[in-house]
Amino acid sequence: MPVGTQGAVKAVSPEDLERIGVKSILANTYHLYLRPGHKIIERLGGLHRFMNWGRPILTDSGGFQVYSLSTLRKISEEGVTFQSHLDGSRHFIGPVESMEIQKALGADIIMAFDECAPYPADYEYVLNSLKLTSRWARKCLEYKRAPSQALFGIIQGGIYRDLRERSSKELIDMDFDGYAFGGLSVGEDRQTRLRVIRDAIDFIPEEKPVYLMGVGAPEDLVEAVMLGIDMFDCVMPTRNARNGTLFTSNGRLTIKNARYVDDDRPIEENCRCYTCSHFSRAYLRHLYMAKELLSYRLNTIHNLHYYTQLMEGMRQAVREDRMDAFRQTFYENRKLN
Amino acid sequence: MPVGTQGAVKAVSPEDLERIGVKSILANTYHLYLRPGHKIIERLGGLHRFMNWGRPILTDSGGFQVYSLSTLRKISEEGVTFQSHLDGSRHFIGPVESMEIQKALGADIIMAFDECAPYPADYEYVLNSLKLTSRWARKCLEYKRAPSQALFGIIQGGIYRDLRERSSKELIDMDFDGYAFGGLSVGEDRQTRLRVIRDAIDFIPEEKPVYLMGVGAPEDLVEAVMLGIDMFDCVMPTRNARNGTLFTSNGRLTIKNARYVDDDRPIEENCRCYTCSHFSRAYLRHLYMAKELLSYRLNTIHNLHYYTQLMEGMRQAVREDRMDAFRQTFYENRKLN
Repeated sequence: MPVGTQGAVKAVSPEDLERIGVKSILANTYHLYLRPGHKIIERLGGLHRFMNWGRPILTDSGGFQVYSLSTLRKISEEGVTFQSHLDGSRHFIGPVESMEIQKALGADIIMAFDECAPYPADYEYVLNSLKLTSRWARKCLEYKRAPSQALFGIIQGGIYRDLRERSSKELIDMDFDGYAFGGLSVGEDRQTRLRVIRDAIDFIPEEKPVYLMGVGAPEDLVEAVMLGIDMFDCVMPTRNARNGTLFTSNGRLTIKNARYVDDDRPIEENCRCYTCSHFSRAYLRHLYMAKELLSYRLNTIHNLHYYTQLMEGMRQAVREDRMDAFRQTFYENRKLN
Repeated sequence: MPVGTQGAVKAVSPEDLERIGVKSILANTYHLYLRPGHKIIERLGGLHRFMNWGRPILTDSGGFQVYSLSTLRKISEEGVTFQSHLDGSRHFIGPVESMEIQKALGADIIMAFDECAPYPADYEYVLNSLKLTSRWARKCLEYKRAPSQALFGIIQGGIYRDLRERSSKELIDMDFDGYAFGGLSVGEDRQTRLRVIRDAIDFIPEEKPVYLMGVGAPEDLVEAVMLGIDMFDCVMPTRNARNGTLFTSNGRLTIKNARYVDDDRPIEENCRCYTCSHFSRAYLRHLYMAKELLSYRLNTIHNLHYYTQLMEGMRQAVREDRMDAFRQTFYENRKLN
């Protein structure tokens, strides 16, 4: 899922996303609650109508942003008091408020409100944090959400094996529509992250979707799919696009490099995205160097197309039971760079 | 003509422009000469191919930008020595160099290299400037441009009636493919500008296109068409879009105004642009306040559509000999604001 933090995937229109083949997007509860406000979006017919996006939307719970973006937060049994990163105004969001906001936004998949422990954090802190997350998860389940909305629980527990196990079992007992790994991609190394997933994923019933939040690089996606992850969100394809880093099957390409100044080839031969179908590396380099707004859009279209194709390729490989071969080809192509 | 200074109309793709109905664009010789360089663009197949725009392009001569953007310029009989506004590097452009660059870029309409006198400037200065412009115009005509390229001469003469007359007669004697009014929209008031056009336009043969450079607001376009002007370029629709000022038949709309926070209507009822077909004022206000890149594009699409429709409306009115009625309706609609 590309990230549409403020009700727009940065630099592209919903029509661009459809043409790229994007199937669903993520939007941030925290941001939309603060601006323009979930009640305004509800009055205007919900987030789908507001941003003119007919395909699925997942909203996060606001939990992660409350901890990472706001200031002066204070956690109690009922939720979190915090100050807006926009204007310093005071707010309170707990599990009930998070559900209210996500109901008003009208996303198709909504997330339980969790506490995301800092990294690194000691065992005691993480244990108390996951207990609170489980109590909040129950409150979220009890809240009367819209019948069309699926609710996912978020597994916490830091890097501690027994805590991840405990968190996943507690949530699975509550029977959510799907499960997410939270508290990852916050500074731990890749091997630790994969180990944490391995520790807990087998407890999750086969038929439930599993979502790895905030991950990641193409190689992270491949490794996580190998372990059974079904869904991802990450700003990487869009943010890197705006910084001039483009993804190809042979690895990354830094468009500002002088070698592309008169390179008439597309970013990637055989790529069928709008950007590669119409523009050369030389033109994209020129737009980037000249800080033209079109640069952000054309780069974003290509990167999202790359990610969309990567996931589509993995879905096919999983269906045909050939993920090992897919993975091998993926790494071999990178060596050609 | 929307302005595509650096080989891109800011915030929109060539496909957006085609869907809006834009028939031709302007690109700046000075900017493209400095970055990425006209020789690189020539090697890549010319500006049309470089930016993937199949419809007509007009390039200016570089003259105006040499005076307005560069530093330390020194004018001689052969041309202008100046320092780049990008990196301070030293360059020389005269009539021959301007023709060489515009030939390499491959625009459909190219402009003679002129000296654009400052405003205000005394009679003596403007007289000498227009004499130089006429000598340079002859050199541009003598240069062997591509057979497909039309060359326009630029009428100078400041606000002095006899000098505008002299400049237009000298250029008309040389028989250019079209004529432009230069040295306007540089600080003079609207009445003076219209008077200058009236003073000189009747000397231009009926069958030659007449182009008013750097103008302007919708009302400026209507008044200038009344006097016989055929072509315009201006950054106003695109720059105002990025500043959140949107054009409608009832006047301008400032999208950041709080009154639009939950306004579910499009910018303009009955507007058929992509933006008005899919997004509300409330969403556009949100994108603008949140500084989303999509804001620039959606606003630009609407403003260019407004301008394109305005010009199309005037073309029809001219054909049907009812410009007086068109003009009256234009001003009456504004009173409804």
